[in-house]
Amino acid sequence: MVVEVQDLVAGARRGEARAVARLISLVEDESPQLREVSAALAPHTGNAHVVGITGPPGVGKSTSTSALVGALRRVDKRVGVLAVDPTSPFSGGALLGDRVRMQDHATDDGVYIRSMASRGHLGGLAGAAPQALRVLDAAGCDVVIVETVGVGQSEVEIAGLADTTLVLLAPGMGDGIQALKAGILEIGDVFVVNKADRDGAATTRREIRGVVAARDSDWKPPIVLTVATTGEGVDDVVAAIDQHREHLAGGELDRRRLARARREIEALALGALRRRMGDVTGDARLGSLAADVLAGRSDPFTAADTLVERL
Amino acid sequence: MVVEVQDLVAGARRGEARAVARLISLVEDESPQLREVSAALAPHTGNAHVVGITGPPGVGKSTSTSALVGALRRVDKRVGVLAVDPTSPFSGGALLGDRVRMQDHATDDGVYIRSMASRGHLGGLAGAAPQALRVLDAAGCDVVIVETVGVGQSEVEIAGLADTTLVLLAPGMGDGIQALKAGILEIGDVFVVNKADRDGAATTRREIRGVVAARDSDWKPPIVLTVATTGEGVDDVVAAIDQHREHLAGGELDRRRLARARREIEALALGALRRRMGDVTGDARLGSLAADVLAGRSDPFTAADTLVERL
Repeated sequence: MVVEVQDLVAGARRGEARAVARLISLVEDESPQLREVSAALAPHTGNAHVVGITGPPGVGKSTSTSALVGALRRVDKRVGVLAVDPTSPFSGGALLGDRVRMQDHATDDGVYIRSMASRGHLGGLAGAAPQALRVLDAAGCDVVIVETVGVGQSEVEIAGLADTTLVLLAPGMGDGIQALKAGILEIGDVFVVNKADRDGAATTRREIRGVVAARDSDWKPPIVLTVATTGEGVDDVVAAIDQHREHLAGGELDRRRLARARREIEALALGALRRRMGDVTGDARLGSLAADVLAGRSDPFTAADTLVERL
Repeated sequence: MVVEVQDLVAGARRGEARAVARLISLVEDESPQLREVSAALAPHTGNAHVVGITGPPGVGKSTSTSALVGALRRVDKRVGVLAVDPTSPFSGGALLGDRVRMQDHATDDGVYIRSMASRGHLGGLAGAAPQALRVLDAAGCDVVIVETVGVGQSEVEIAGLADTTLVLLAPGMGDGIQALKAGILEIGDVFVVNKADRDGAATTRREIRGVVAARDSDWKPPIVLTVATTGEGVDDVVAAIDQHREHLAGGELDRRRLARARREIEALALGALRRRMGDVTGDARLGSLAADVLAGRSDPFTAADTLVERL
């Protein structure tokens, strides 16, 4: 069955949840209509404020996202949520499937919620997520939240996708978190110390403040304490996001989005070149180059030159 | 000063530590002589057994690596160690600089130890590490250990570089580790439960065994308990690595190394294409395409096509 992309886009713009879901599926599955969808969405994008939420496992990201959605709905914002699960590059299966708490919003037609797997190794958020964001943006969401588990590179990628990046931490996360922190602390526009009713919240805030104070930038990230399970502090998070949005309006938003578009175009172009390289040189050719390297008859650089010359 | 690459390679093959260090610096700094180094090394590579060591922060990887080096030295193996530190893509600084325990081997001329930063986002181990491995291989190391902190993608990349991948875990690592585990458990050829004198070692072993038993492969990864600080169990790790090496000799080693060479060639070719794309299209061109996308006049796919066509 041929899907009428223009009909779906029109439906999404009228707020039809099924059209939105269908469009996201088309971009997620890399359907042959992906390009057509992207072109049809183009005139309708650029309105949504994209909020990235990241943080180590166990800080309460799903609960916080849900609470934030509730707070945004109370001020009549249309909200999209894209929950990106880290995927094992080997099994292809999502690690964390339960989005139970998000069920609170399942019947609210001002909220679109979508889970995506972050396709393995290099794909990650750089894959289908930007396209899914464009769908939610074109569908009239005022705010799109991208939530990801901050294991490894995803927190960096999310900063690349978002207008405002929220970094969630919690008191007493232990040693393993230390290693994650440095990268995470550098990308936060707003910091949230969740589970703030626990011991150590003040210490965690102080640690963040120490790092943030050293930053050389106009924007000093606010640090908000929350208890997402009770909703405590969540309105302050909304206020902090609004503050940051106002700050961005001074030119920084365009700069961020331009940089994002550049990266996306470049990644798509490289993907196309990679496919073309495969087409032209063929699997057997690369195999014989690799065998030459393995036998010491050639080196990887010379072999790569040979591949490129064939293009 | 022009460095005589052939002299350095000859020196490295005679066991001169300074020549080895110099060659690694040349590949790490992506010097203009990188290609020349790679070509000069080519005939002398393929002898070292590459052992990857990965695992979450806090399991005792440095201590274990040091203990393993000691055990390999006792059976007269020449050993190279490449310690890859995760680097923040923003600051460019290494997170974990202390390699204090490795100082034990600093005066042993049968051991080369080198720390490398894993250049940011996409570079990672895929960058200079394969070339540094080739240096240590050509320098006559019987075993080259690549140690990386298993945060995020690095544990997957290490499996791509290594002949034998050791996954280190420890009892009672807590929630954060759960999220890392699935990916890590799939890449291990040998599992080590370090800090086995702590509570929960048997439980951790049982958990690993459960996952490993489900694997559909000829090789059932051994699970070794160690206390790296005292050296307990470390000889068993050496034995497990030897077992795996024998297993690989049945054809699997060539398959792994061929796949590795293919990936390396492909990555270098893509890097060359990316640079060429930059040369041809220029920064300004990509900027104007990005501006078109941002304004809704174009979409990322159409913009990417334009970039590729210019090549």
